[in-house]
Amino acid sequence: MLNMKYYSLNEINSWERFYRANFINSLSGFKPVSLISTLHKSGLPNLAVFSNIVHLGADPALIGFINRPRQAAPHTITNIENSGVYTINHVHPSFVAKAHQTSAKYAEGVSEFEEVGLTPEYNDGIEVPFVLESSVKYALSLSEIIPLKENGTFLVIGKLTHAYVLPSIVEQDGFIDLSKAESMVSLGIDGYTTTGSISRFDYAKP
Amino acid sequence: MLNMKYYSLNEINSWERFYRANFINSLSGFKPVSLISTLHKSGLPNLAVFSNIVHLGADPALIGFINRPRQAAPHTITNIENSGVYTINHVHPSFVAKAHQTSAKYAEGVSEFEEVGLTPEYNDGIEVPFVLESSVKYALSLSEIIPLKENGTFLVIGKLTHAYVLPSIVEQDGFIDLSKAESMVSLGIDGYTTTGSISRFDYAKP
Repeated sequence: MLNMKYYSLNEINSWERFYRANFINSLSGFKPVSLISTLHKSGLPNLAVFSNIVHLGADPALIGFINRPRQAAPHTITNIENSGVYTINHVHPSFVAKAHQTSAKYAEGVSEFEEVGLTPEYNDGIEVPFVLESSVKYALSLSEIIPLKENGTFLVIGKLTHAYVLPSIVEQDGFIDLSKAESMVSLGIDGYTTTGSISRFDYAKP
Repeated sequence: MLNMKYYSLNEINSWERFYRANFINSLSGFKPVSLISTLHKSGLPNLAVFSNIVHLGADPALIGFINRPRQAAPHTITNIENSGVYTINHVHPSFVAKAHQTSAKYAEGVSEFEEVGLTPEYNDGIEVPFVLESSVKYALSLSEIIPLKENGTFLVIGKLTHAYVLPSIVEQDGFIDLSKAESMVSLGIDGYTTTGSISRFDYAKP
């Protein structure tokens, strides 16, 4: 196609590590960035920004995320293994800088809520806090952790147990208009943005 | 939090099927919508819109997507099992209606390229076509298909083999500014939109 450039695998493999990471992380598209809150065995909460979140099914309601290899990102997965419960909280422009700051390598057992200045919110008897500042959030119960042998990452699968949404953005047929909540997307390792207004299409038939 | 509504699992499970599907499909956030092109054993290409695409790692470059249960969505996964090669093509506003139309249940062996009016583009000896109209696209070689026992879906993992990007949107450090390409995101089952311009943050330190 006009003006397109072909990047061969040989060329990509020859790149410096960070250049390649930026390129490959952007190539698959925008991602549903969120803050995952878990509980350290000490009882202190942990908060970390994740982008690789994926809808797995509506009935039962299952949502997965990719946790990087254990040595690179040990806290969230270990806390989920220990407590079995975690919350996922959308990111909005009012606190995106704080959300990004949770990606710093804080020591184990440190609460990123305190470090970055977000507010833990305890709801409906759930032991793990939500992010008060987030207007779309949900709690999950661990279903399964699948190690991906190709690169040491993990697909962490959770079953939805509780959802919290601004009711004003839920449409008559259940669709949640996240553009009205300004739920953000991320791109690559360090890019964030909001979306435009949403166009919905009819159910397609041949 | 002020104005938030709590949706219990009991309430969610009581909903009519389509209401629940709209709600749960929206809850996890915006998704990197793309067209996946595969080859039917007849040699005709197949094209289908997918949203649940996930970055798995940069070295090696691995990208996954979720294929629904085989009886609901048999063509893409079967073609990938047969040929081992597929392409993923970003969706832009100029052809989003055509992209959505590929979700119709066409018979096996029908080319959605022809049915919806998109152009197959054969590049660099790859047997599976790309979507000519797309300005960010890549080819993958099948690495592994992991069945998710919870709901009969599959995580299809591919290894990047070829990438095609408008060079004008690749920044000095490898970051691809997909907002300039107007790569779209999807929401729920039938919502699509573009993004605003992207803010990048510094590498976070404690």
